[in-house]
Amino acid sequence: MEEVERLWNEVRELSLGNNSKVERLQTPPTALQFLRDFVNPNKPCIISNAINHWPALSLWAQAQHSYLSRSLSSSSVSLHLTPSGRADALAPLPSSPSSLCFASAHVQRTPFPDALRLIASPDHNPAVVAYAQQQNDCFRSEYSALAADCDPHIDWATEAFGGALPEAVNLWIGNQRSHTSFHKDHYENLYAVVSGEKHFILLPPTDVHRLYIRQYPAATYRYSSDTGEFDLELEEPIRYVPWCSVDPFPPPEKLHEEVSKFPLYFNGPKPFECTVKAGEILYLPSMWFHHVRQSSGDGGCTIAVNYWYDMQFDIKYAYFNFLQSIHYRSPSLLLPEKFSEETDSDPDCL
Amino acid sequence: MEEVERLWNEVRELSLGNNSKVERLQTPPTALQFLRDFVNPNKPCIISNAINHWPALSLWAQAQHSYLSRSLSSSSVSLHLTPSGRADALAPLPSSPSSLCFASAHVQRTPFPDALRLIASPDHNPAVVAYAQQQNDCFRSEYSALAADCDPHIDWATEAFGGALPEAVNLWIGNQRSHTSFHKDHYENLYAVVSGEKHFILLPPTDVHRLYIRQYPAATYRYSSDTGEFDLELEEPIRYVPWCSVDPFPPPEKLHEEVSKFPLYFNGPKPFECTVKAGEILYLPSMWFHHVRQSSGDGGCTIAVNYWYDMQFDIKYAYFNFLQSIHYRSPSLLLPEKFSEETDSDPDCL
Repeated sequence: MEEVERLWNEVRELSLGNNSKVERLQTPPTALQFLRDFVNPNKPCIISNAINHWPALSLWAQAQHSYLSRSLSSSSVSLHLTPSGRADALAPLPSSPSSLCFASAHVQRTPFPDALRLIASPDHNPAVVAYAQQQNDCFRSEYSALAADCDPHIDWATEAFGGALPEAVNLWIGNQRSHTSFHKDHYENLYAVVSGEKHFILLPPTDVHRLYIRQYPAATYRYSSDTGEFDLELEEPIRYVPWCSVDPFPPPEKLHEEVSKFPLYFNGPKPFECTVKAGEILYLPSMWFHHVRQSSGDGGCTIAVNYWYDMQFDIKYAYFNFLQSIHYRSPSLLLPEKFSEETDSDPDCL
Repeated sequence: MEEVERLWNEVRELSLGNNSKVERLQTPPTALQFLRDFVNPNKPCIISNAINHWPALSLWAQAQHSYLSRSLSSSSVSLHLTPSGRADALAPLPSSPSSLCFASAHVQRTPFPDALRLIASPDHNPAVVAYAQQQNDCFRSEYSALAADCDPHIDWATEAFGGALPEAVNLWIGNQRSHTSFHKDHYENLYAVVSGEKHFILLPPTDVHRLYIRQYPAATYRYSSDTGEFDLELEEPIRYVPWCSVDPFPPPEKLHEEVSKFPLYFNGPKPFECTVKAGEILYLPSMWFHHVRQSSGDGGCTIAVNYWYDMQFDIKYAYFNFLQSIHYRSPSLLLPEKFSEETDSDPDCL
């Protein structure tokens, strides 16, 4: 089935470019340009000078994030705690460390000033990584005190997508210890960085086989503030989550093993990589796989707001499902038996 | 590979609709609506009241097409002649009538009034079917005397596609004896009917396997005005053309044979069918397979103008090529050996 590899290459040659770079716009596009040149071809871009007018850009970057502390002094927010900075990511099963589970963070409602202290001073407690985020429209709920600091929607995107406001607007306050593992969303995503930098690795939906989506049992971290330690508990009854198996930055001692387990990722076309700086917006098209790291701004935090718009479930989505239904393994690098047994996945859940 | 059949159904369920009907708009869309709701999802539509202002609508329908005769009295046009009304279609090979070739019309430059007489009075010479058409931008060349009668482009479509004028504008003057066999074009197509009616059968690109694209040797009709007869001559050296094998209207005595040769077409989801009347525009999306018949207007002719705009060669096109590269035969109805040998086709030529 070299047809699958031909598809990876053709979509780059025809549309995305072969240099693995994300296109940059110096000014916001019109709705029509955005729709025609990026949404329609399902192609990412970075837009500069689109949010220069947001008060957030200067206010949120104040020393010690004093404006944020003051504005949210009486708010409680959803704080995600993990031992490693990797939530919604694969982790060794506590009962059988050679197997992996899909580990979610310990989430606790926390007074915002306490949350900010944990995030902005990561060295203070190295055993706990804190990330203030909740992908449930949190910017318009938990953080409503900040509503006037950003636009409620991205006007040219709203117009392009048909006029409906975003389905969700989420705020992300983290530090360089937090990573987001490879996954895709069934939304069109406008991702605006307000403070610090976000580093994205992107793969188009046509590369789906390169992520080795497998079923993993769901588990959740439980944090005890008494002991300061985490437990990782499997959900009962067991629930399986389809998730990408590839970590693009394996520890050096595991690199060789990971490359031989996931040759389609490591030996295939170079992923798209980009850094989105404060003041820039990434258009992250629906169904693109993305892995995210971050560098902190002056105040110690990376802060971003993202807008999720409903995607069109059309011929592209149907083609994606067809592609994903095709079993494919590299002809030259067959995988160990235990991987080939688990190739089914549920595209609706990832 | 029931995945292929799942794809046929999913694209209908998600986007095109299950009733095999083409959506109708009562007024022209804005460029943004057109791009978002039809071009992006690769979905046809019929638009009413978009060309009411064209002088052509009344002028070209005058009794005996007198306006056209007068305007083009000194013009010569490309007239396509066939014995059957089927040009660019499959026909029995003269040397071996059980095999098929791809037969092109006899094309001759003809004074327009003579051409019009042949087309408008099909019963006068039943052995010859005439069709004035040439898909080489003929409306802006051979028919430039009519330029003021239609808009030079469809403004909302031009804006949607990025501002460039159509790559080609073609005029079609025919009668009910001419058919156009199943094929696809690598253009976005705005098809405006000025007189009479056009009857389209449409299949989305995801149905590619249902058309049984095969390689056929190219041949051309040669018409002798002395004998009034046609010869069908194979090109030398032999050149193969990939073409759709399915005739949706086989003669009754061949119906059973055709259904068993092409079960994916005859037993699959119902094709999209629509009639485009004088004054209406069909948006025929790039890569859609289409078969066209026509009914004549009062003056005996069916007249249409179509605008070909460049298509985007993007992820949808790459997905199409991938799908076409997958060999697929109905699991329940395997084909005779002679068909299964010829499944390769060159998508660039069809």
